[in-house]
Amino acid sequence: MEKIGKQTIKFNNPPTIVDCASIVGPKEAQGPLSKYFDQTLDDEFWGEKTWEKAESKIIKETVNTVISKSGIPSTQIDCMFAGDLLNQCISSSFGLRELGIPFFGVFGACSTFVESLSLGAICAESFANNVLCATSSHFCSAEKQFRFPLELGNQRPPTSQWTVTGAGSAILSKNGDGPYITYVTPGKIVDFGIKDGNNMGAAMAPSFADTLITHLLDTGRNPSYYDAIISGDLGHIGKNIAIDILKSNGYNIKNNYNDCGVLIFDKESQDTHSGGSGCACCGTVFSGYLFKQLKSRKMKRLLLIATGALMNSTTSQQGETIPGIAHAISIETF
Amino acid sequence: MEKIGKQTIKFNNPPTIVDCASIVGPKEAQGPLSKYFDQTLDDEFWGEKTWEKAESKIIKETVNTVISKSGIPSTQIDCMFAGDLLNQCISSSFGLRELGIPFFGVFGACSTFVESLSLGAICAESFANNVLCATSSHFCSAEKQFRFPLELGNQRPPTSQWTVTGAGSAILSKNGDGPYITYVTPGKIVDFGIKDGNNMGAAMAPSFADTLITHLLDTGRNPSYYDAIISGDLGHIGKNIAIDILKSNGYNIKNNYNDCGVLIFDKESQDTHSGGSGCACCGTVFSGYLFKQLKSRKMKRLLLIATGALMNSTTSQQGETIPGIAHAISIETF
Repeated sequence: MEKIGKQTIKFNNPPTIVDCASIVGPKEAQGPLSKYFDQTLDDEFWGEKTWEKAESKIIKETVNTVISKSGIPSTQIDCMFAGDLLNQCISSSFGLRELGIPFFGVFGACSTFVESLSLGAICAESFANNVLCATSSHFCSAEKQFRFPLELGNQRPPTSQWTVTGAGSAILSKNGDGPYITYVTPGKIVDFGIKDGNNMGAAMAPSFADTLITHLLDTGRNPSYYDAIISGDLGHIGKNIAIDILKSNGYNIKNNYNDCGVLIFDKESQDTHSGGSGCACCGTVFSGYLFKQLKSRKMKRLLLIATGALMNSTTSQQGETIPGIAHAISIETF
Repeated sequence: MEKIGKQTIKFNNPPTIVDCASIVGPKEAQGPLSKYFDQTLDDEFWGEKTWEKAESKIIKETVNTVISKSGIPSTQIDCMFAGDLLNQCISSSFGLRELGIPFFGVFGACSTFVESLSLGAICAESFANNVLCATSSHFCSAEKQFRFPLELGNQRPPTSQWTVTGAGSAILSKNGDGPYITYVTPGKIVDFGIKDGNNMGAAMAPSFADTLITHLLDTGRNPSYYDAIISGDLGHIGKNIAIDILKSNGYNIKNNYNDCGVLIFDKESQDTHSGGSGCACCGTVFSGYLFKQLKSRKMKRLLLIATGALMNSTTSQQGETIPGIAHAISIETF
């Protein structure tokens, strides 16, 4: 691989995404992408006593599913990248502790899935035959940790998004017949001074725009090169801001751009306000829906840009703004 | 690079650690390694209003120091890896948000520094000319988050360790004259069922032993190959457990093994009980003391094994055990 332009990595022997798996919660099961997920849950606990333990079980079973689907035994997986939204990424470390695979914990907030695919692809081209990538989030554990106890029944502002309950996982291999990871553009931290923790879309849209424009300049591609440009979880409000920022920079992405947070829930019937969010938003929409489009060649060129808000509840209480980040990965079939 | 044995990566063009920097708090400044750090602070706030903001400032200034010392402008640093103990790794993301360098957030608890060096080395051999690695921790922010408010003045059990206030940072380059990163053995998660959150050394010692033994088997080396084998923050109790586990596996590491948590504080005069801990324990002891030993060739072969406890306060409250992890990196001068 080699670095091209300002911050893009070009893969000379592009790794293949061998297979993906996804498990989602009950609300996601009622959404428009329901049929694409490997498993849908009837409730948020899945037989566990706490939401945190449930989230660990979801990522564990998602990873077991992708290992089983891929036919690659876990002993042949050289390393894994995983992370999540819970403090100290406990969903990943507890969910994956029995696997016996060398483990790199990553944290990019809701950009974690693409961060893990990016680092996984670097490993797959350089030393690893097979790499596992995974992430999770859970509406109840996230609300409890970042906002208010669910039992309070707080009213949610119109800009708020709904953390996706679920997990997404992928196995990358050095050799395979695609879909291939051809480019990675890791993002830099972008802080435009947004302070409203209930408007993540606005906080993250500038980092999406920064990474997308950098990717286009570095690769010499136009937005129209891609069948689809998909952001992680900007939601309805962030999506429109992103379109506006790109327009003011001379790029029209209206025709082929969408957002995982917009795709996963039905805007009219599912009352999530600005759409879905969380590590599992991009993780499940890619692992469930987008990967199948690529595998069946209904989609041939995808630019997946997961976005993350790198804050916590303490920083908001201390009056800080919200730094955003976005990592882009180009996935293509030949 | 190539994978050898069970889980070790061998670098065929070993990246160089160009330079390191470290800043520590007032207690560390009174310890035996004081003279090796770039800067020592008079108080835990450093002019900031909160401990979290102080920790962000410490990692920010440490990174500015290493960039300045290395003579490599930040525009020529291709990517950076950083993480810390605070929820959602806010010390790193807030401290480093103005740098404009592509950012990969990592979380390995107190193993984060070696995790970042490991991934940094993989990037430096494969596509990057220069990579920045950094981590931080802070006694006050860590106590507040993981244990009790400092104002309570709780008694600390004899097994407890003292989170190091400080930050360590390194710049790796594809080309240079060493010290070289020659091997990385990323660890797998190891859980031996320890539940006592005040005895981290016991919880992490099995993962240290697992990674060390794997590294020795994978490379065909004996412990005596290394001038020093240094663990991250097992502390006095964990260090003795580690020596015992290795002995029961047929390895004698007594003569050349030590621990950053043992080295950073004076056992008699500094009342830290079992020694130092935290991401900055390994981060500052390496960046301050060990790197200078390697650079001056007083030490030629170092195996640095940072250990982490992948739990949070919620998992302890929910009765969970403590999963440990340890990443090993072999650093040599030729």
